[in-house]
Order: sequence, then structure tokens, then C-alpha cells
Amino acid sequence: MKVAIIGFGSVGQGVAESIQNKDLGIMITGIADSKSGVIAGSGIPVGEVLAKKQSQGVCGDTDVSAWDVVKSADYDVLVECTPTDITTGKPALEYIRYAINRGRHVVTSNKGPVALAYKTLITEAGEQGVCLRYEATVCGAIPIIHTIQEGLAGNDILKIYGIFNGTCNYILTRMAEDGLTYEQALLEARELGYAEADPTYDVKGIDAAIKLVILANTVWGLDKSIDDVEITGIDNLTPEALQLAEKHGRTIRLIGEIDPAKGTLRVSPRIIPQEHPLVVDGTLNAVLLEADMADGITMIGRGAGSIETASAIIGDLIFIRDRYVKAA
Amino acid sequence: MKVAIIGFGSVGQGVAESIQNKDLGIMITGIADSKSGVIAGSGIPVGEVLAKKQSQGVCGDTDVSAWDVVKSADYDVLVECTPTDITTGKPALEYIRYAINRGRHVVTSNKGPVALAYKTLITEAGEQGVCLRYEATVCGAIPIIHTIQEGLAGNDILKIYGIFNGTCNYILTRMAEDGLTYEQALLEARELGYAEADPTYDVKGIDAAIKLVILANTVWGLDKSIDDVEITGIDNLTPEALQLAEKHGRTIRLIGEIDPAKGTLRVSPRIIPQEHPLVVDGTLNAVLLEADMADGITMIGRGAGSIETASAIIGDLIFIRDRYVKAA
Repeated sequence: MKVAIIGFGSVGQGVAESIQNKDLGIMITGIADSKSGVIAGSGIPVGEVLAKKQSQGVCGDTDVSAWDVVKSADYDVLVECTPTDITTGKPALEYIRYAINRGRHVVTSNKGPVALAYKTLITEAGEQGVCLRYEATVCGAIPIIHTIQEGLAGNDILKIYGIFNGTCNYILTRMAEDGLTYEQALLEARELGYAEADPTYDVKGIDAAIKLVILANTVWGLDKSIDDVEITGIDNLTPEALQLAEKHGRTIRLIGEIDPAKGTLRVSPRIIPQEHPLVVDGTLNAVLLEADMADGITMIGRGAGSIETASAIIGDLIFIRDRYVKAA
Repeated sequence: MKVAIIGFGSVGQGVAESIQNKDLGIMITGIADSKSGVIAGSGIPVGEVLAKKQSQGVCGDTDVSAWDVVKSADYDVLVECTPTDITTGKPALEYIRYAINRGRHVVTSNKGPVALAYKTLITEAGEQGVCLRYEATVCGAIPIIHTIQEGLAGNDILKIYGIFNGTCNYILTRMAEDGLTYEQALLEARELGYAEADPTYDVKGIDAAIKLVILANTVWGLDKSIDDVEITGIDNLTPEALQLAEKHGRTIRLIGEIDPAKGTLRVSPRIIPQEHPLVVDGTLNAVLLEADMADGITMIGRGAGSIETASAIIGDLIFIRDRYVKAA
């Protein structure tokens, strides 16, 4: 199976390294970063490209663009892992649509296109008979979409609850544990690299809401957007509120919740018992699925990180390899 | 896709009901219990057979045996869910081998054959180009084998830890919570239907050890048997030991552990922190996978129950439908 990788930051590099180091039956025929690209139908020497990226900051030839790779490289699957633009989804959305309409499968870690244009993408993929996978967009390394679609196949999923944002979870954990104020905990999260310079996207609950939209559309075939999510962030929480909860054997976590029967799509700080399975430490994510046969299934794992994201992408690639490319 | 169901207790009936009630593209062409059987190439009227089983205690014609169904019914997949005999694996083992050598896929919830004859079964299935799945044998409704093989595909699994026996977990939870003795907690577990009249198999750690053997052989391609597992049960634990652990923010759980690098395959009561993800309540099961890319992934869910077991069987059936039968 031949793949091209668009976006060659830490995630793209992680995917390339895994393909190089593991015997997955996958060959890389195109790579592009924002400034350069490389195309080789007989396989790219991954070690050399990684070394060049490290030493020169580019993966290939500055005459070759990402669009050249998307349009001309010989691949079965496009791996799209450029940075997310959650307002427009571009340029990722355009790369993905081009690849789909070229009749190629797509794996992406990019939340923007999936949250903004799910119906369009799935419809076009269906028309072309190709597969679009995006496990990496929700809960990092936790294979939640695989679990819902394959492991729990045949189950009706009734509800989903979860901790979808590791930054918020870290801040709340620290406020509860050591009585830090929101500002102190945020500063600490920034120093540790868990929060961006502008943390709005995380602490206002937007990132969690985007993941809910992706899950709602995937699991129940809905057509929701971020505007359909009731969102309350964690930025107004006081340490006193957390300490009061702790005093009563409870704590406060930012919970994302989908209840399709009630039409609920909500992200909000919630008071929950300390022994609840969704009470996880630090930057972990956790998801609780309620299913008609399996009952409750909880999954806990790392929600971010480049190798963790690469893990989800590789899982999707192997799914496509076994389900589509091998069978063809 | 056509399936035959051997074993028509609560699990077999749950599978039949799900196939009847859900639009899975699956038809049942054979059913057998220990006393009777029914074969119909054009599809069995499931509602009638379930009603007959309820009212008369048999699913079909007493002239038709399980062997008749295994040998003569027209099916793509044999669903084998007869009671487990952990010493010989029979008769399930013989049904499964017959079906495989007839060139049919097999899904089983039966730990005996998989723990006793994994290599033989996998080798014969490979020779016949058919698929053997047994998700239901480990951790009930938790799709742990799917997660390892598909969701985390491409990851090297480094270690597995888990709570593999709900009966023991219930007893330990009750001893820790309310200071019950082992005997009191066992009695309570029996009254609630969580423990068998003879609880040896559970409380001595044998059930958990069998699940470790199945996972070790599946995940790392080993050829382990129950004799390779170091086993310590929970039947000698005192409430004082549990209370001492609780006093220090810890608790005691029966942990199954596989560390292939160290050659460890062990079931034993372990002292672990109360906030550890494997500390789950009551009869729940939990598994912590350590993987090279995804890092730690924990899954928690119901480890037993007929509809939960049926859930795992249906997941396997859909896997085979999509990966083998549809593609053929």
C-alpha cells in the first residue's frame, strides 16, 4: 500500500518513522511540509528525509508543493496531518476533497475539515467508494471510533460522556489537588507545554465541543456543527468550588456529553464522584460509552502528543490496508 | 451471511435475539442445544424457536443433534457457545475443529478450547483460510482483542495488566468497603448470583489465569498453557489486610499480569493505589494495555453476563462479515 503524507511536523514525522521501523506493508511515495515536497513512486528514503527535515527544516524540494504531492504522487491513501484551522478547515479540507475525488482513501488527524464538512466528505467518499478515517481527531491515542464501529459493532450506542480535553483536565486536577487558582494552574500547564500561549480554544470548551460534533456525526449520522453544542468553559471556576466538591467526596471535571434521545450536545464543568471512571489524572482523556448490549464501556488514555496521534493514524492506515487495499 | 448456533442457553439466545432484532445482514440456518436441534437452509424463524425453548426447554427436534448441525447445516460461521469444560475443552473443541476443517469461520465464547488448543486451532484455521474469533472469552463485553488487533494495530503491546475476574473483584470490593470477611463476601456474591456454588475456579485465580493464557497466545503468538501461570487466589486474604491497605490510600485487587519481556504470566492479589485505573467497583473488569506508541490504554466494562457475552459474539460476527464474507 502506498501513502503520501501532507504535513510533516511531529505527527507526520512520527507516522513516517513508524512506517519505516515497523513491517506494515506500507510504502511512502510522497511527503510535503509547508515549504517543500518530495515525490518518489518507488518509495521515499524515509531516513534521509527525516534527517533533512531535522537539519534543514524542510523535507524535500522547495519546487515541489503540497498540492503537487496531493495531485500527482502515486498513493492509495493520503495521510493529512497539517495544522488545524477550525474556522475554515483550509487548506486541509481542500487536500482531502481533492484526494477523495481522485479516488483515494484519506486518513486525517485534522479536526477542522471533519468538524466543518463531515457530510460533504462522507458523501463524496461514498460516491468514490473510498474510505475516510479520522481516529486521531478524537481522544488522541484512544481508539474510540474503532471501538464504536468495530469492537462494539452491532451495539446501539445510547450515550457518550467524556473528558475530551487534556489541558482542562490538567488545570482542574491541579486546582483540586493543591488549591491552585485557575490562573496559577494555567500558568503551570503552559510551562509544561500542556497549554497554548492562547488557551482560549481549550479552556472555553471549544476543543471538546469539536470532538463531540465529530462523534455525534460519526456515531449517529447526524449533521451537527459547533453551533449546536451548549458550551461552558472552565475559566470562571474558583478553587473554592473545587475544594467544596472535594470535601464531599466529589470533584469538578469538564464533561462532554451526547444524548441523542434528548438531543443533548453539551460541554460543561460537572460535579462528579471522585471514584467515577471519568475522573482521570493530569492530561489524560476518558470516554464512557453506554451501549444497548455491552452496557457501559470506559476507555482511558493519552488525548494528545505526536506519537499518540501517529498511533491513531497508523491504526486507520492498517484498517484501510486490510479492509480495502488488500481486498482489492 | 449464514450462521449456526451451537449451545442455546442465555448467551446463544441473546445472539439469536440480536440477529433477529437488528439489521445485521445475518441469517440463522442452524441452532442446537444439548437435547435438540433445528436446521433450515432458508432461515430459522427465530421467534418461534425462542418461544419453544422458553416453553418446552428445547430449541428444536430431539432427532437432530448438535453434531448434525455442525456437520450438515449450511453456514458461513459456526457460533459455538456451549458450556466451558476447562479440562478437556470438549465437546466444544471438537465442534470447532470440525467446522474449521469444513472450511467455515468460527466464533466462540468458550474459554476451554481456546486456552487448551490455541495453536492447533489457529494453525488449522490458517490452513483452511478461515477466521477464528473469541472476543467473548476475555473480559466479557470489553472488546479487548479488537482493540489490540484493530484499534491499536501497528502498536507493539509491551505489557497487559488487568482485573479479569468479576467475582473476585466483587468480593474484594466488599471486604474493603464494609470490612466483611472473605466468607461473608463470598456468601453475598453467591446470593447475588455473582459466584458459583463451587467458587474454586474464580477465587483460586484459575479463571483469570485462563484469560491471561488466551491473551498471551493471541497478542504475542506464544504457546502458553495454564501451567505457565503463577497463580495465587484471594481465598486467604483477611479483612485486616484490606483495611490496612485502605488506611494507606491503597487497596488489594486480584491482578493478572503479562510481561513478555520478563516472561511473567501471573495472577495474584496486589496492593495498588485507590486512584489506580484498575481499581474498579463490583463485578467490573478492567484492562490496562501498555503500547509502544499509544502508551497506556485502560478499558473498563462488564466482564460477564449473557447479553454482554452476546455483544462480544456479535462484534466478532460483524468482523467476519465485513472482512471475509462480504469480500468473498
